[in-house]
Amino acid sequence: MNLEELAQQIDDEGRLPADAGLRDYIASQHPADIAGFLSRLDNEPAWQILSALPLTLRASVFGYLEPSEQAELARHTRRGELAAIVSEMNADERADLFNKLDEEQQQALLPALSQAEREDIRRLASHEEDTAGAIMTSDYATLRPGSTVREALDQLRLQAPDKETIYRAYIVDEERRLLGSIRLHDLILASPQAGIDQLMERNLLTVKITDDQEAVAQQISKYDVLALPVVDEENRIVGIVTHDDALDVLEEEATEDFLKAGTVGGIEESVRDASIGLLYRKRITWLVLLVFGNLLSGVGIAYYEDTIATYVVLVFFLPLLIASGGNAGAQSSTLMVRALATGDVVMRDWGRMLGREVLIAILLGGTMAVAISGIGLWRGGPDIAMVVALTMVLVVMVGSIIGMSLPFLLNRLNLDPATASAPLITSIADAAGVFIYFAIASALLFGGGE
Amino acid sequence: MNLEELAQQIDDEGRLPADAGLRDYIASQHPADIAGFLSRLDNEPAWQILSALPLTLRASVFGYLEPSEQAELARHTRRGELAAIVSEMNADERADLFNKLDEEQQQALLPALSQAEREDIRRLASHEEDTAGAIMTSDYATLRPGSTVREALDQLRLQAPDKETIYRAYIVDEERRLLGSIRLHDLILASPQAGIDQLMERNLLTVKITDDQEAVAQQISKYDVLALPVVDEENRIVGIVTHDDALDVLEEEATEDFLKAGTVGGIEESVRDASIGLLYRKRITWLVLLVFGNLLSGVGIAYYEDTIATYVVLVFFLPLLIASGGNAGAQSSTLMVRALATGDVVMRDWGRMLGREVLIAILLGGTMAVAISGIGLWRGGPDIAMVVALTMVLVVMVGSIIGMSLPFLLNRLNLDPATASAPLITSIADAAGVFIYFAIASALLFGGGE
Repeated sequence: MNLEELAQQIDDEGRLPADAGLRDYIASQHPADIAGFLSRLDNEPAWQILSALPLTLRASVFGYLEPSEQAELARHTRRGELAAIVSEMNADERADLFNKLDEEQQQALLPALSQAEREDIRRLASHEEDTAGAIMTSDYATLRPGSTVREALDQLRLQAPDKETIYRAYIVDEERRLLGSIRLHDLILASPQAGIDQLMERNLLTVKITDDQEAVAQQISKYDVLALPVVDEENRIVGIVTHDDALDVLEEEATEDFLKAGTVGGIEESVRDASIGLLYRKRITWLVLLVFGNLLSGVGIAYYEDTIATYVVLVFFLPLLIASGGNAGAQSSTLMVRALATGDVVMRDWGRMLGREVLIAILLGGTMAVAISGIGLWRGGPDIAMVVALTMVLVVMVGSIIGMSLPFLLNRLNLDPATASAPLITSIADAAGVFIYFAIASALLFGGGE
Repeated sequence: MNLEELAQQIDDEGRLPADAGLRDYIASQHPADIAGFLSRLDNEPAWQILSALPLTLRASVFGYLEPSEQAELARHTRRGELAAIVSEMNADERADLFNKLDEEQQQALLPALSQAEREDIRRLASHEEDTAGAIMTSDYATLRPGSTVREALDQLRLQAPDKETIYRAYIVDEERRLLGSIRLHDLILASPQAGIDQLMERNLLTVKITDDQEAVAQQISKYDVLALPVVDEENRIVGIVTHDDALDVLEEEATEDFLKAGTVGGIEESVRDASIGLLYRKRITWLVLLVFGNLLSGVGIAYYEDTIATYVVLVFFLPLLIASGGNAGAQSSTLMVRALATGDVVMRDWGRMLGREVLIAILLGGTMAVAISGIGLWRGGPDIAMVVALTMVLVVMVGSIIGMSLPFLLNRLNLDPATASAPLITSIADAAGVFIYFAIASALLFGGGE
């Protein structure tokens, strides 16, 4: 039996199996796996299992849960139990959890913690969401300038049990202003008598408390570092952001962009467990906006109602043509939204991109026109085929230009380029397509006049 | 002047400024920033600047470039120069570059390297793309069982200069079979006389050479580790995958999924520098497939041509109604594709998800029907308004069900769920929408018969 099967069994039976070996089996698994297992269970059995684990493991497992799951579970605990777990957690995870608790839970928790823990939580939990301050931890190692390598190693040995990482230590003056940093790697290699002032790196990469978490994560990725120090206005170190936080942030931001591209608002908790009301709220706004956006296509059709009444066959090609403009535009916006998000393309590339896009769109539209013109001939004769082919090239070009330019425009207006979602581009391109199609049809089929 | 402005200036003037301090200024920047600067330049000036840097820095900067940019630059180098850089590079980066070189370049490079380097390149470069083998490095530290902590630290000091990380060392027997691992953190804390066999972790997380790179990166993210060892069939260690590789892989895979959601094929190089031909090829297949998919909508319209001829006003609402089904479906598929990719939802959740989706779709469709029925009344009277409102609820429901189910279906068929892109869902929902709309219209407006 593995944890997956066990979760299934508990789900089916609605209670824990009465197996004495169960606790030991679960305790032998990796904390991250135990956390994954618990988050598949209801709160009641999840808490029963969690509270049966040894304290250190319990805190570690608890730390691997999502903050929203932690807060949920916290409701099932007695005050003392929660405090014991919280004391054992990493400083940054502890602060995240604290922010998810309701006020009553917060007030119940605080008195059970030590004063130092309380102050640390208050400080870390006070930073704005999605900033470096909100994801940093205060569990970093510091050294004083003027130490020898031997003294530095002794210092790190003392600090190690409480720190998230000792692989880079920060050298600070009395006011905690950052002077430099040194890798444990280099300390190990150096002579014990050497001074750390000669060995430390002074050209420091740092981030500010208020920096956006995504930018911080991208720096960690770009510079391939284990952690980045966070400093305040006076260059005093206040925390570090570590590589595992960078991974979580990049995953979270990728999800947010992906959902936005599908016109779904950001969902912080698991989609599996999200409520009907939450999902409704995250979806309805864009759906209703797009309904009214699509009214424009209807207006175009109404305007050409006489043309349609005369040539009903035109309606046969309508969905196909307007969808093609939207599809090409969705491709262009997808490429640009991602390229702007990863920094692959910047604002001043717009002109060059646009020129290239027009050429590509002519090639794409031309290919699609050829693909469809046979059917145009068969259903409507040469005139209709000509109208359809010409429209195809034009709608693909217009759709592509809109799709490529809108992300840049949004970026220029300091809005999120990812708002240029496929459905939005499709709506705009649809409306443009209707007008292009019937304008060409009116001109060619009625010999210039309507 | 910063690097960004300097790149602009070189771009404008077409040559390097004749400034003696330039080299020192550039050399004082972070290698990752220098690499970013070089990749904005043409090959000729980029190579001029690179070759003027000290060798160690040159290799480090070169390592931060994308493999395709490295291969491009490699064409400008003389044989000896490239070999000097390659010898200094990390083992995994070296192998990636080797794979990007053409055969002639490979044959020119190999004789200039040491035999150990040649063998290492051949071995690392031989693994299949997108597997753990392809992204692992052979620069990991090993220890022998039975050592004391003091001996282990001495060993690591010897190995440190060549290794990508010594923060976790792997304990192997004579056949390099993996026995356990130990953190430098724990070695530093332990008594020098202690034996590492008592200290090492035996419950090892490992991955196989052929494991998918995305799964490996997700494990690094899940377990918050610095590196994972890669083992062969006989549990012999052959390499490690490090946290910075995990970041790169997750970013790469997020881009791939994002592009796929916009029906664009994966593009490995920078979108900014991609050729027109490449972008055309990555886009045309889906566009043409979707043209023929959208024909189905045309067929639906042709089938109901008489209805349309009698009630031309119905066409006014056509784009809006069929787009709404597609938009709701695109939202559902977006949610499911991402949830399946992150493991948030698994196959057996389908039933539960579907039930919830139907309820949400009724709420969404109901809201949208209310939003549009006023305009239905105004343009077409109560009968048309009724047809439009009823159709809206139904197309949103059908679109949502299709959008939610297709990713699961693709997953079940061992295809990539991300293939269920917004444009594909929209095409299917469009066709369904046409039939639903005119079927309801025929039934209600003609009193049951057509």
